[in-house]
Amino acid sequence: MKKIIFVSVAVAALAGAIAYVVPASGGADGEASPIYGVKIPAGYRDWRLISVKRLTGGGGKLKQLRAELGNDIAIKAYREGTLPFPDGSIIAALHWNEDSSDSDNKVLAEGFPGLGLESTFAGSAVNVQFMVKDSKKYAASRGWGFADFTNGKPGNETLHKTCFPCHQPGKDHDYVFTRYAP
Amino acid sequence: MKKIIFVSVAVAALAGAIAYVVPASGGADGEASPIYGVKIPAGYRDWRLISVKRLTGGGGKLKQLRAELGNDIAIKAYREGTLPFPDGSIIAALHWNEDSSDSDNKVLAEGFPGLGLESTFAGSAVNVQFMVKDSKKYAASRGWGFADFTNGKPGNETLHKTCFPCHQPGKDHDYVFTRYAP
Repeated sequence: MKKIIFVSVAVAALAGAIAYVVPASGGADGEASPIYGVKIPAGYRDWRLISVKRLTGGGGKLKQLRAELGNDIAIKAYREGTLPFPDGSIIAALHWNEDSSDSDNKVLAEGFPGLGLESTFAGSAVNVQFMVKDSKKYAASRGWGFADFTNGKPGNETLHKTCFPCHQPGKDHDYVFTRYAP
Repeated sequence: MKKIIFVSVAVAALAGAIAYVVPASGGADGEASPIYGVKIPAGYRDWRLISVKRLTGGGGKLKQLRAELGNDIAIKAYREGTLPFPDGSIIAALHWNEDSSDSDNKVLAEGFPGLGLESTFAGSAVNVQFMVKDSKKYAASRGWGFADFTNGKPGNETLHKTCFPCHQPGKDHDYVFTRYAP
């Protein structure tokens, strides 16, 4: 049963491929995530960059490029090395399908011959996740509330039950895996 | 001769692996790029995200994760679909060596068993590049000035001579390859 739940979670969280457009300002009008009640924070697409990541799996079928953004409180904490993250910190993880274009790769082949360079880029959006720090409200999950949205809609309760357990191994960095990119 | 120049350029621009720390505010005190006279713009690390990219090559030896950031003028132009980019637009391309950690991948293996998930992230910085729009100052290169910095120091003239020719195939998008990620 545990395995089935995890697989369904993975499908929901990782393998979706529905494109959606995030408004420039983000938006806080939509539904809240189950368990934690986190809505999409307004303006998150304008937040500053923490780091860039890539996720692969599914025998080559799953390829994502990812960006972690932070609100001002989170970015300040990262830069000053503050742990645990202070209340009000929010970290956003934007996940896109990894895409490529023949014309981009032709430019690389002609500009840098013999090096076999290939480029990929963020294609259609998959999902966006948030971690919100509120040490009182989310005391049961070490101060973090979680949310996972696909096409602006939150995932279900089964999905959100897996967030905190999966983040437990990151406890030495306040349950946050991503480090600030230099 | 052309080939030799391109290879040396590629080594300088793409294969460097010297880590450096960009101050939180960026900094405009350093040397300027040859030909174009572009300095590292203050605060560029705080600019908003345009998109995320990945570059591979060299028979598997070169693996980079990359982020494109834009100043306010560039971001506004992207969102409104303004072409050509208005004067004052600056686009920054931050390039890092792609890195991974066994502990991250252990978390994925345990959290999502059977999917073969693996994660990578931005490791040490390689270089950072800028495109600065000034239609008068850079009229000879269609309004764009270029700069490539490694460890805070600009690359040489030979390197910078290749910037504009390499961007020529992007002329339908004002010589900018990167598109805004949804």
